[in-house]
Amino acid sequence: VSVSDEPQTGMSGEDRLIARYFRPLAQAPGAFGLADDAAVLVPPPGWDLVLKTDPIISGVHFFPDDPPDAVARKALRVNLSDLAAKGAIPAGFLLALALPPNTSEHWLGHFAQALGADADRYQCPLLGGDTDATPGLLTVSITAFGIVPHGTMVLRSGAKVGDHVVVSGTVGDAALGLRLRRALPGGPTPAAPVRDHLLARYQIPEPRTGLAETLRRHASAAMDISDGLVGDLVKLCRASRVSAQINTAQLPLSEAARSMLDSDPGLLDTMLTGGDDYEVLCTIPSAHLAAFRSSAAATDIAVTVIGQVVAGSVGPRFTDARGQARSFERPSFSHF
Amino acid sequence: VSVSDEPQTGMSGEDRLIARYFRPLAQAPGAFGLADDAAVLVPPPGWDLVLKTDPIISGVHFFPDDPPDAVARKALRVNLSDLAAKGAIPAGFLLALALPPNTSEHWLGHFAQALGADADRYQCPLLGGDTDATPGLLTVSITAFGIVPHGTMVLRSGAKVGDHVVVSGTVGDAALGLRLRRALPGGPTPAAPVRDHLLARYQIPEPRTGLAETLRRHASAAMDISDGLVGDLVKLCRASRVSAQINTAQLPLSEAARSMLDSDPGLLDTMLTGGDDYEVLCTIPSAHLAAFRSSAAATDIAVTVIGQVVAGSVGPRFTDARGQARSFERPSFSHF
Repeated sequence: VSVSDEPQTGMSGEDRLIARYFRPLAQAPGAFGLADDAAVLVPPPGWDLVLKTDPIISGVHFFPDDPPDAVARKALRVNLSDLAAKGAIPAGFLLALALPPNTSEHWLGHFAQALGADADRYQCPLLGGDTDATPGLLTVSITAFGIVPHGTMVLRSGAKVGDHVVVSGTVGDAALGLRLRRALPGGPTPAAPVRDHLLARYQIPEPRTGLAETLRRHASAAMDISDGLVGDLVKLCRASRVSAQINTAQLPLSEAARSMLDSDPGLLDTMLTGGDDYEVLCTIPSAHLAAFRSSAAATDIAVTVIGQVVAGSVGPRFTDARGQARSFERPSFSHF
Repeated sequence: VSVSDEPQTGMSGEDRLIARYFRPLAQAPGAFGLADDAAVLVPPPGWDLVLKTDPIISGVHFFPDDPPDAVARKALRVNLSDLAAKGAIPAGFLLALALPPNTSEHWLGHFAQALGADADRYQCPLLGGDTDATPGLLTVSITAFGIVPHGTMVLRSGAKVGDHVVVSGTVGDAALGLRLRRALPGGPTPAAPVRDHLLARYQIPEPRTGLAETLRRHASAAMDISDGLVGDLVKLCRASRVSAQINTAQLPLSEAARSMLDSDPGLLDTMLTGGDDYEVLCTIPSAHLAAFRSSAAATDIAVTVIGQVVAGSVGPRFTDARGQARSFERPSFSHF
């Protein structure tokens, strides 16, 4: 119940909104068509639940004028990216929406349609949720559930000295895309295909769900890269009480990122500390490397060794092709 | 990563905040001391997970000047109230905080302390979460997990003709408390003890966790009353495809509410449609009534029969002691 008695938005009934836009997404048995107060999830015997919540707020995690389908995809996928890095198979999600008065039904319709398409694509059904009118910012709070065989969630803390440091896909595209999206002054002006690739990589994360089983079998530690490779590797090393040696010449870069970097080598800082990659960062014991590569190859997701885990309590060292050390002023994005 | 490059709040590091205020609450094994990207919940074999998310937003669900301990309790308890009504035993929760720049560490400290005390009290540990700085409204998004033996979650949809309609505790206190909190003009001015009781009932919900097992054993349908008895009974009846006949003279009222009602009988509308009761509304088959009463008596939570489930597709009928029908202009709070 609202603490104020101000007139609410013109939309006529929370129940009608939910029935029209979100009930079609809630076909799983435990969702009860969103007609109950809570949802049920029946975990397969012997499997653990993996739990993740990562809300996105308008103007903080996405642009207020981003299209509703992009907002929907980002809201779900940032959570699925974490589940994938933990080795978990998606099992369902809860959605809490805070909607400002100017939210149109047109917006909601496109949002729900894209969310439903992703729920199908990742086999992660809507199980329940909550809708509030807010005088504040549009907020999409998703809590996602995954499953892993008992005791097999891949932690941040298992990296051992001698393991290979591996990343999936390419790094740095999204940070360059955000830079373009914000239209910051300076820097090279890319050609349209380069620009489109980088903007898409920023706007629509690709959770590496296909790698989950490979990671469970072969990774000693894993996490997704959401705050930049440098800062996230610092966190993984700290949790594992190790350090790492990374060769920046081995970093997997898209053609688009490489063309930007050729014009302005200083962009490497942005690419490695800017975040939003939603790739997997993991460590693979040497004895597992061949099997890991072969298992990953079957998923069509590229994986690249970028360095090694080494002993030490200092932060990971980044060196270039000539062995020159690189340092980063602001290793990771932080909200505070 | 933030879409803007504006200066963030003065607080020095999300990691430090989490370590200082929230890590002490995350002692469950699956929480990994909040040092991993996701949490693990291991459900007991043969039990289902019950999932609920109900965020609270400053100025919408609580007053911006409410004390931090009251905000913490409300944030967790509104979710625990749902779990209790579904027959579920609390198992843990995720916490996503969106903090405006003026949030002080003093506020956070008291918030975390009260949240930890409630997590202990209800044996519902913090498992994980997320913290964002926001230019918007303080928002506390809790997703709570409960467990029930497989297939035993109590639904809204099981009420049958002839069942007794039952509520726990007393109804209407919180709606009167909110009225006092908002200092609306008109209405009686209560004595201090009456005022204190009603304000407390509004500010600090008491989830009926103790009733969970009793409900699983004996209730044909249940939900918590969060949007007012009238509107929530409409929802339960609609889900169960039945109607109900309620005698308002049988409604359990606190002494404080009764004294207010004696001064102004028109307040009954507020009490039954105003919400925030967080009591359980359930239906009990006649054959179970004695056993239900006896099981509830052992929990020290009052339960009161207020009417019967009847056939029909019209809304529930409320009549007073003289058999006069009452109608309600706005049966339930809706955000839209």
